[in-house]
Amino acid sequence: MCVEGNAVAVEVADALEAGAAPASQLIEDLVVANHILFDQGVVDAFGHISARHDANPDRFLLARNMAPGRVAADDIIEFTLDGDPVNASGRKVYLERFIHGEIYRRRPDVMAIVHSHSHSVVPLSVVKGMRLQAIFHMAGFVGQGAPVFEIRDAGGDSTDLLISSNHLGRALAECFDGHDIVLMRGHGSTVVGNSIRQAVYRAVYAELNARYQLQAMQLGEVTFLTEGESRTCIQNVEGQVQRPWDLWVEQARARRSASGR
Amino acid sequence: MCVEGNAVAVEVADALEAGAAPASQLIEDLVVANHILFDQGVVDAFGHISARHDANPDRFLLARNMAPGRVAADDIIEFTLDGDPVNASGRKVYLERFIHGEIYRRRPDVMAIVHSHSHSVVPLSVVKGMRLQAIFHMAGFVGQGAPVFEIRDAGGDSTDLLISSNHLGRALAECFDGHDIVLMRGHGSTVVGNSIRQAVYRAVYAELNARYQLQAMQLGEVTFLTEGESRTCIQNVEGQVQRPWDLWVEQARARRSASGR
Amino acid sequence: MCVEGNAVAVEVADALEAGAAPASQLIEDLVVANHILFDQGVVDAFGHISARHDANPDRFLLARNMAPGRVAADDIIEFTLDGDPVNASGRKVYLERFIHGEIYRRRPDVMAIVHSHSHSVVPLSVVKGMRLQAIFHMAGFVGQGAPVFEIRDAGGDSTDLLISSNHLGRALAECFDGHDIVLMRGHGSTVVGNSIRQAVYRAVYAELNARYQLQAMQLGEVTFLTEGESRTCIQNVEGQVQRPWDLWVEQARARRSASGR
Amino acid sequence: MCVEGNAVAVEVADALEAGAAPASQLIEDLVVANHILFDQGVVDAFGHISARHDANPDRFLLARNMAPGRVAADDIIEFTLDGDPVNASGRKVYLERFIHGEIYRRRPDVMAIVHSHSHSVVPLSVVKGMRLQAIFHMAGFVGQGAPVFEIRDAGGDSTDLLISSNHLGRALAECFDGHDIVLMRGHGSTVVGNSIRQAVYRAVYAELNARYQLQAMQLGEVTFLTEGESRTCIQNVEGQVQRPWDLWVEQARARRSASGR
Repeated sequence: MCVEGNAVAVEVADALEAGAAPASQLIEDLVVANHILFDQGVVDAFGHISARHDANPDRFLLARNMAPGRVAADDIIEFTLDGDPVNASGRKVYLERFIHGEIYRRRPDVMAIVHSHSHSVVPLSVVKGMRLQAIFHMAGFVGQGAPVFEIRDAGGDSTDLLISSNHLGRALAECFDGHDIVLMRGHGSTVVGNSIRQAVYRAVYAELNARYQLQAMQLGEVTFLTEGESRTCIQNVEGQVQRPWDLWVEQARARRSASGR
Repeated sequence: MCVEGNAVAVEVADALEAGAAPASQLIEDLVVANHILFDQGVVDAFGHISARHDANPDRFLLARNMAPGRVAADDIIEFTLDGDPVNASGRKVYLERFIHGEIYRRRPDVMAIVHSHSHSVVPLSVVKGMRLQAIFHMAGFVGQGAPVFEIRDAGGDSTDLLISSNHLGRALAECFDGHDIVLMRGHGSTVVGNSIRQAVYRAVYAELNARYQLQAMQLGEVTFLTEGESRTCIQNVEGQVQRPWDLWVEQARARRSASGR
Repeated sequence: MCVEGNAVAVEVADALEAGAAPASQLIEDLVVANHILFDQGVVDAFGHISARHDANPDRFLLARNMAPGRVAADDIIEFTLDGDPVNASGRKVYLERFIHGEIYRRRPDVMAIVHSHSHSVVPLSVVKGMRLQAIFHMAGFVGQGAPVFEIRDAGGDSTDLLISSNHLGRALAECFDGHDIVLMRGHGSTVVGNSIRQAVYRAVYAELNARYQLQAMQLGEVTFLTEGESRTCIQNVEGQVQRPWDLWVEQARARRSASGR
Repeated sequence: MCVEGNAVAVEVADALEAGAAPASQLIEDLVVANHILFDQGVVDAFGHISARHDANPDRFLLARNMAPGRVAADDIIEFTLDGDPVNASGRKVYLERFIHGEIYRRRPDVMAIVHSHSHSVVPLSVVKGMRLQAIFHMAGFVGQGAPVFEIRDAGGDSTDLLISSNHLGRALAECFDGHDIVLMRGHGSTVVGNSIRQAVYRAVYAELNARYQLQAMQLGEVTFLTEGESRTCIQNVEGQVQRPWDLWVEQARARRSASGR
């Protein structure tokens, strides 16, 4: 079961039998969420989104090792919280599946997770003393300063920066106590939600928050949201998550239909 | 009629009977204006544009709660200046319709209003002491320094930053005395025009003005337009509004036709 | 013949009879050049490109008042160097046609002119003391510091910044002595070439030079091209102008074919 | 065989006979690599990618002088390491083919080379004292500071900045001792790989590294990768090169199919 040497896309033997099948709607949402994250520029060939299994909270669903924009329903694999696949049947899996398992274990309220390297988050993650902070009403979930996960603390100063073990996954998951987004130094970010739709929404708007913060901080002192504003924005604005979701689904389908897929 | 708790997309009972129907050209323009604002990157799934009713200056027209890029003619709803729908028939409406009603009430010359969170306007809105100012000839309407609406003054420091009541709408509308664009801290901007075409034009070029200002102010002291230049630019350049409008309409139709809509 | 009041898209009576027709290849190149400038983001609904008449050096060719991306062969009008149309037949003309006539008069070597408001040139034009300077080998023509035309010197401090008269055109044209590109404060730039292809090439790479300069100057002291490097780059790199031209023509045709035009 | 005067796209007589033909898969990969580099914004009409001949390590393959996005299989020409074509048959060749020949000569481990002027690399190349440095896990190959090739040292201060001779090619190639990417002041960069896929991957992520570095360095002190992190990232992350390659190939084919090519 252990990951060998330098293999990043790994073959792992299936651990257990799969239990009840997830709802087909969940799989369908997870597939289109992969496409949306690609279309919206949150992921390129790298990055991934998972969902907690709706029939078994100790399992989660994640695509096999592939580019998110190309994921189809039969690419979705079920995993235990230890990151062991139950129905991979030899297909390669993401090395960083431990991000997902360990966060689902630590945060029972989390139902979906996006890990990405979006364009404005990476530069923010490497500036000393800088923290992502909620700058506009769409991103209240960012809160009063997202933690920056420094992998050197848990893995030493010669890692590949990847969350390639349960040990590293646990260290990252601890940062999610009281936070819904964590930056990863020189790597990207991970964001959680109570549904696939909310996690996708948050991944898109976390990138925008980072972009606006990069621009604003070059010009002077910034007024960020207060704690009360952040909280009220989460309650009210994220209640609108269906609106962008519908738009993004329509766009994802139109693009894939236009390109003959 | 009051908005309940945390509901952001709200159902509101119809207030009165609709009067004379608006001209079909007005509806058509309003629909394509929604598409243009999306195509030009001024709005994403959020933001909206309204027009004053051509047969009744105490009414305005605004889409139901949905993404602007997807609006069709039968999504347009008529509202009173208090923000009460007259023909919603149970369809959900935008929480922020109060922006529109209160500005139409205070500014009889205003015929169309765009509210958006465009990408360069948001960062400018949060830098302390910064004001959007006319930097090039296409944006004379920005003038000598757009006000920044700080919702904390009217709504306290724990709001969702949304203009969710007539009270907040009135506070925002007051900023439009002597100004045609107002930034909203941590939120976006609202811009007004004497027609749908002018309001769309201004929303597009306000974003460009903000983008140029962000870039120029990083490099040194900036020469902005004088008051005289701003005034002459409004008179002369905005007389050309039909030219970009024709282009944008053509693009909007081509895109929607290509995607099978 | 004088331009009335606030009319920016003007109707002007035809001045003289048209002489020999221009070569059809010249018209064809001018049309596709309009499309290329739009596709490459140099112009939006505004900006224009002209060519000197191949059979009469005292005439030039320019589209009627319209968005460049939509220009067709029968939209091209012939003008005298005074900016008077000879075959407009009542069609509206660009207010800023004086840019073209006066530069063709002053610089007999110039065969084509692009006027635009491209995105990185505008912010550079308003920073006090800043000059566009050749930063990479594709833009040797920018030279050791492009002049910035300040319209206040010739037109006072309440203009619309537009080159709306022969008087202003002459003042701008004087800046082209010893320079092939001139920035216009708060407005954009004008660039000249010895052919349509060279002028288009230069308009595209002037924008890139400005973009790179904006980015580099934020980080520290910049090494610009020497005068010798600029000169050698013009000689050698611009000899390659056919290569991007062929690509851009192919793209322009593919896009217009895809959209059914 | 010498390059004449100011000719940049040159005709060069064939030097020798071609030996064994390269594998058709190598040609196919080289063609699609040209398209990918264009689609991903690494090259525009300029820039090129070569591959070492699989049957003869003293030869390399490179397109004739043309825009990379339009290259087809029969545009690929075989060259000696001196940059002499063996089967050009009068077709024009890239002036800068000496980049490729001299690096293949000096670095026997290199199997593919990309030379480009990508948008964030050029500004970094002209800031005094600035060096591109690995900022995130996808770009470990950038290492602890890429050399900046100053052509003035080898060619004087009046060149066109192009690597237009074996002499200049050798000077550039020397910078690759211990480095896999070299910036070229006022020009762009060259990056090498052990396969076409790796060189393409590196060209794409070198641009992203530069973009992130430009943004981060404006905000404060930056934490770059350690030498150990860079090394481990190369080992592990670049093992994933097939994943983006598959995506990019699919996109390149879909785009060219959609545009009828």
